Amino acid sequence: MKTIEEIRLRASELTNLTNILALLQWDQEVMMPTGGAAGRAAQFSALSTIVHRKICDPDLGKLLHELAGRLDEVSDGDQALVRVLKREYDKNTKLPEKFVADFARLTSETLPVWVKARKHNDFNQFLPLLEKVIAMCRQKAGFLGYVHHPYDALLDLYEEGLTTNDLDALFGSLHTELSQLLPHKISQGKTLPKTLANIQSMRPQDQVAFSERLLAEIGYDFNRGRQDISAHPFTTSLGHNDRRVTNRFRPDSLEFIFSALHEGGHALYEQNISAEHTDSPLDEGVSLGIHESQSRLWENIIGRSRLFWDKYYPVLQEFLPQQFKDVAQKDFVHYINRVHPGMIRVEADEVSYNLHVFIRFELEKGLIEGTVTASDLPPLWNEKYENYLGVKVDSDANGALQDIHWAHGSFGYFPTYTIGNLAAAQIWHSYCLYDTDYRQTLQQGNLTKIRQWLTENIYCHGAVYPPAELMQRVCGEALNARYFVEYLKNKPEFSL
Amino acid sequence: MKTIEEIRLRASELTNLTNILALLQWDQEVMMPTGGAAGRAAQFSALSTIVHRKICDPDLGKLLHELAGRLDEVSDGDQALVRVLKREYDKNTKLPEKFVADFARLTSETLPVWVKARKHNDFNQFLPLLEKVIAMCRQKAGFLGYVHHPYDALLDLYEEGLTTNDLDALFGSLHTELSQLLPHKISQGKTLPKTLANIQSMRPQDQVAFSERLLAEIGYDFNRGRQDISAHPFTTSLGHNDRRVTNRFRPDSLEFIFSALHEGGHALYEQNISAEHTDSPLDEGVSLGIHESQSRLWENIIGRSRLFWDKYYPVLQEFLPQQFKDVAQKDFVHYINRVHPGMIRVEADEVSYNLHVFIRFELEKGLIEGTVTASDLPPLWNEKYENYLGVKVDSDANGALQDIHWAHGSFGYFPTYTIGNLAAAQIWHSYCLYDTDYRQTLQQGNLTKIRQWLTENIYCHGAVYPPAELMQRVCGEALNARYFVEYLKNKPEFSL
Repeated sequence: MKTIEEIRLRASELTNLTNILALLQWDQEVMMPTGGAAGRAAQFSALSTIVHRKICDPDLGKLLHELAGRLDEVSDGDQALVRVLKREYDKNTKLPEKFVADFARLTSETLPVWVKARKHNDFNQFLPLLEKVIAMCRQKAGFLGYVHHPYDALLDLYEEGLTTNDLDALFGSLHTELSQLLPHKISQGKTLPKTLANIQSMRPQDQVAFSERLLAEIGYDFNRGRQDISAHPFTTSLGHNDRRVTNRFRPDSLEFIFSALHEGGHALYEQNISAEHTDSPLDEGVSLGIHESQSRLWENIIGRSRLFWDKYYPVLQEFLPQQFKDVAQKDFVHYINRVHPGMIRVEADEVSYNLHVFIRFELEKGLIEGTVTASDLPPLWNEKYENYLGVKVDSDANGALQDIHWAHGSFGYFPTYTIGNLAAAQIWHSYCLYDTDYRQTLQQGNLTKIRQWLTENIYCHGAVYPPAELMQRVCGEALNARYFVEYLKNKPEFSL
Repeated sequence: MKTIEEIRLRASELTNLTNILALLQWDQEVMMPTGGAAGRAAQFSALSTIVHRKICDPDLGKLLHELAGRLDEVSDGDQALVRVLKREYDKNTKLPEKFVADFARLTSETLPVWVKARKHNDFNQFLPLLEKVIAMCRQKAGFLGYVHHPYDALLDLYEEGLTTNDLDALFGSLHTELSQLLPHKISQGKTLPKTLANIQSMRPQDQVAFSERLLAEIGYDFNRGRQDISAHPFTTSLGHNDRRVTNRFRPDSLEFIFSALHEGGHALYEQNISAEHTDSPLDEGVSLGIHESQSRLWENIIGRSRLFWDKYYPVLQEFLPQQFKDVAQKDFVHYINRVHPGMIRVEADEVSYNLHVFIRFELEKGLIEGTVTASDLPPLWNEKYENYLGVKVDSDANGALQDIHWAHGSFGYFPTYTIGNLAAAQIWHSYCLYDTDYRQTLQQGNLTKIRQWLTENIYCHGAVYPPAELMQRVCGEALNARYFVEYLKNKPEFSL
């Protein structure tokens, strides 16, 4: 069939060019000398324009339309390819070129202003541009189209098929549960074991070595990737056999351990996609939420469990003897699981984390439907933090200004963090049904067994199944908050 | 004027895309995990195809043609831009697309065979493919066109305007002089000072630190570049403010010092091109020969002079005390200048180096005009080495198989190495007329003064002036071998 072959060819070219864009980005954040910034922006713009034109090519539209009526004639993989390409084509063609250019200009203007406003703790500096960004995001929702709620159009950009209704339902039950749970789990009165005070003296090379060891242990393939240093840890794909992670190493922070597992989880997903999807748009994780479920599964469910550290704490002690030789494993595991609601999302523990997301979801929904305005944000933010988390926000810098997402115009992104947490627990539950000896598996560090199950059930498929369908296949039911709540309720590490 | 604006826009897009190709290459040789190879090839091919189509775009041809008749209406810079783009357009449109694809396939097939043949010292393994490569290069010369000699068409690819006649004249006088000079300069009987025996123990981090120091001393700007490790040192440009160098560090070799200065010379050229040429095809060195003149000037004329080491030998001793504290500067300078004709071009001293190139030039000329066949190469090669250098070649691996260039199809490339050596001495002569205290300048390490003169006279222009015109402007006469021969004759370091 000629049509599908032509589509495959175009898809492969687009994937190769998108992988090059990823290299431009990776190099910029990891390697590029400071002077290279303007040149890199020009390169990025030149190639992005080419990619955009190729995605919006009416001939591609025609090919996709031609095939749409007789999808049953092609293989499952090709059907998925058409679905994914059609999404891209629609997203890109529904937005007028002028709008895309204006939006890019506005957000690149807004980003440095947000940086300054946060630095000076001055929300009003940020306000006028934020208002414009919100106005354009509402416009964007209009261009993209939606059935029930304008926010749906934005959510779908990050999580195919996710709706405001879905989130209302998920967050509804979750919010109630978390509010009841949080007070019981807070590690009040428990302070840092005295012996952990030494952690300020970690040498970066020891941290690098241990994080590389951890990555290797969970099955990250260094022949098909590498770990480097960047200001914020991330994972990126430069091709089927080149999935890179980054980390950061601060002498006084254990964050590098959990960043290694987090980014490692993202990378395992991508490294284990079936080779048949090489150079295809199916060669990536299917959605932000499912992707996050894998980073959180390895970081939190596995990486903060006592059983995992039964095997790996001695290894940590071996890599960083000065810091950990006198710290009991029990104290370490308690320390990495302490529950302490605070102002900052990225520092939040597993119990309070989703309340941070819930607050952002409520505010975003209001902003996009027009019931909240940008100037309402600081007081509303602080009120919600007090009510939901019992936290007094001391400044807008630590409040409504803390995240980059709004400056970036990424409305609809935050909820995928919670989707990830919920899906991780639900998928883990399914794994434990398969491996009833999962405690022993963890304790013996038989991580290959876990990775293989995840590969067979999730990773190998890449973007073939839409997220809801994938969850159904893996877990036999739709995404829900039940398993996550159960997980929090029963997690013994909170009360060590 | 609309035409020139349209040309500038296209030129800028092409430059940005070419810089991206350079990043793909840099990453491949410096960072990419081994698994990434196939994906990188696909990315390279996807973007190269786009670049090729853009260069061959008939609309660009029309614009260039339109302007050709009234070049006096545009600025000097724009005239140069049109000249450079026209060259690219012609080179790319004269070669049929099928020929380009076939040639790329043939050479990528030939490269690994050459690697094996060299490893197994088996020229016959290489022969059938080499014959094909030569046949295609002769075809290529035909497509590109020439007036006097088919080899001219290939030379012009690397050195604009250079002809076989020019080289016959240059090499003619040079060959005679070198043949007379070589026996007198050979450092016979002088062996490695005993104290230099310690150099096998250099630590890579000390070598890196000293090479970074040297790069900084000659004025390499690390805010607009970086030094990394690769199998073979190279310099590449990823944009006006991002010119990167690489080096390699072997515990027993001083090569890293001269590679730093060599690549540093290439990079200084590019880092000091006037900012007005940013994102333009004029933002690069004008030819391989002129480029090489700058690497050789910094590596050899400056970097192997006693005066340079008067200032920097104590610095070297400070960075590598264990190796150099007991070595006299005199011995070191002698060691790095010893003349010892051998089989291998890349290890050759300054006196014998160009004889290696001369041999290759004679052979290439014969192969392209058809008076030499590929199977003649090993005996002819060995005979010439014996006659010109007095060297008995012990194997084809160390003889006709030693260089990658022919496997790569780069006939016409070798002569630019000698052009570089000659131009370096000639340019240095002009510098010494300007700075009559040049000995003191060197001795005090006032390298800024040298770099500034080179910048004003050569670097700032980028590719604005064709190489012959540039030499005329800088030196007031055409390129010739006289200054290089004088330099060799008078260089005191050979007879320390």
